[in-house]
Amino acid sequence: MDTDDAALLSDSLVAADLRGIHSHGVLRAPEYVGKLLGGGVDPKGRPRVVRDSAAALVVDGGNSMGQIGAHFAMRQAIVRARTTNVAAAAVRGSNHCGALSYYAMQALEENMIGIAMTNALPTMAPWGGLDKVVGINPLAIAVPADECHPLVFDAAFSYSSHGKIRVYQQKGEAIPSAWAFDKEGHPTTDAAKALEGLLQPIGEYKGVGLAILFGVLSSLLSGAAYGDGLGNMVEGAKPGLDGHLIMAIRIAGFEDPARFKSRVDGVIRQIETGRARQGIEKLFAPGGVEAQIEQEHTARGIPLTEDTLEGLNQAALRTQVDRRIRDGLW
Amino acid sequence: MDTDDAALLSDSLVAADLRGIHSHGVLRAPEYVGKLLGGGVDPKGRPRVVRDSAAALVVDGGNSMGQIGAHFAMRQAIVRARTTNVAAAAVRGSNHCGALSYYAMQALEENMIGIAMTNALPTMAPWGGLDKVVGINPLAIAVPADECHPLVFDAAFSYSSHGKIRVYQQKGEAIPSAWAFDKEGHPTTDAAKALEGLLQPIGEYKGVGLAILFGVLSSLLSGAAYGDGLGNMVEGAKPGLDGHLIMAIRIAGFEDPARFKSRVDGVIRQIETGRARQGIEKLFAPGGVEAQIEQEHTARGIPLTEDTLEGLNQAALRTQVDRRIRDGLW
Repeated sequence: MDTDDAALLSDSLVAADLRGIHSHGVLRAPEYVGKLLGGGVDPKGRPRVVRDSAAALVVDGGNSMGQIGAHFAMRQAIVRARTTNVAAAAVRGSNHCGALSYYAMQALEENMIGIAMTNALPTMAPWGGLDKVVGINPLAIAVPADECHPLVFDAAFSYSSHGKIRVYQQKGEAIPSAWAFDKEGHPTTDAAKALEGLLQPIGEYKGVGLAILFGVLSSLLSGAAYGDGLGNMVEGAKPGLDGHLIMAIRIAGFEDPARFKSRVDGVIRQIETGRARQGIEKLFAPGGVEAQIEQEHTARGIPLTEDTLEGLNQAALRTQVDRRIRDGLW
Repeated sequence: MDTDDAALLSDSLVAADLRGIHSHGVLRAPEYVGKLLGGGVDPKGRPRVVRDSAAALVVDGGNSMGQIGAHFAMRQAIVRARTTNVAAAAVRGSNHCGALSYYAMQALEENMIGIAMTNALPTMAPWGGLDKVVGINPLAIAVPADECHPLVFDAAFSYSSHGKIRVYQQKGEAIPSAWAFDKEGHPTTDAAKALEGLLQPIGEYKGVGLAILFGVLSSLLSGAAYGDGLGNMVEGAKPGLDGHLIMAIRIAGFEDPARFKSRVDGVIRQIETGRARQGIEKLFAPGGVEAQIEQEHTARGIPLTEDTLEGLNQAALRTQVDRRIRDGLW
């Protein structure tokens, strides 16, 4: 990869670990190295704007790592929103782009609201169905505050994920009954049956409806693959077919940014100072837990598991990264 | 009200009943008549664009019925998106606007995607909290198809609503444990305790996070009231403080509309022809149930309950609507 692209990809992974989102942190390095070394993703792929009209942009990721295309798309949307106030970049020709909050949060320092959504490999069925045709298609929204942390939402429309369920399987523990269905569509607490079956959406038909709609927006506007057109959980994603939708909303186009951000502070403080249920120590607004973890990790370093360190080590050996860096880290 | 405004308000209510969304249909007539006759909403209120820059519009509803302002805002967003491809209208000075799908669906015949969201009276707490400061803040997204019905999502971020829980209370039935918390924040199946307590979000922290974010977008961009600034469920909403966010996305700005809509057909047909769980007769894509009900009601008329008819009768008497219309109807 070009140095800049490699730095961006690394930064996106470390940023996720820094905020405590380890599922999308450097844990992914071995998988990503595999995609770049023979997995079909183009390390030198270059995203470019292929359609450009007023507040609408279409970006072709050029089969680059999803991080490269999604970051590029948000940069383009931000620059465009400086004149149009609202701008959307639909991305195709992309790949898995990691934690979506990374792109939504690019908009914050511009006094903009960032929105990012993506298509994902299908792991859910339509409500009442058995066919795995709907992705958990996550959504991220970042809203700047003044003195408080930004409001950052970043979540998929399932209760859980294959990754989390695998952790329960390894420990031999039962999963909560709201997480998955077995192959026949019945709720199951058996991790193995869950992995053969379906993830459960949040809020029954509502969550899978949101996943379908945000999946359609993420892929059909740019011409990217949708649902099982993208691949499946057994064989993985087909390279270069993923899609995302990235939006930037310039606050000054609507409202005085100082007043807006001060009111966001108010929303956050109202939550933080509210009464908590017995047994709950502290209440957080969306993004509050991650902001607190980011402070802790920035001060004291990021704790990684042995497995993650071993994965990084193997990825470093495979890519012949300078041993000094590896030795320095661990 | 002006004849056009009255016709629009009526049409929005009948459209909801036509699609089987009776909770937002003519059932609301007595409540709306109350708001218009001494409830503080201005029957002659006129929405207007108060800020206009490229893809961003701010609309002041002028304390008109929410339907008048929201419909006006979507018209403005659609006209703007014809040149900017994406446009957003933030609405303030508004009131309860009924079923959001009505506005999202305005965009369909223009080959646009419509998005509508609104602030709502607070009925939820932040995750782990006890204070009723977050509305269920619904979201609607409408996406045009070619031969199939449009994809239409329209739902709030709670499992249920005060209205539904009241129906259970009247019948003396227990509510599902996922619907509400009691005053202490514990799940309850007691409808009375639920009404004193809190609605449960879908997907725990995820659903309430979505409600917070969409509430912020619905109100802070336009300067409308947020959360408990809007009022509460006991005293009702303060007139003229509600906010909505309305967006139109012109498909042709991104992709060939024929190809896009044909792919939406594909998404819908894949769902409809998929395997169903035992006991499920038919699978629907978002908006599919409502489209089927709309066909049935258009052919055979809309069934209304005795309570709804009595409410309409009382509202008609209160507003001295021509008896012939009432007699003709009932």
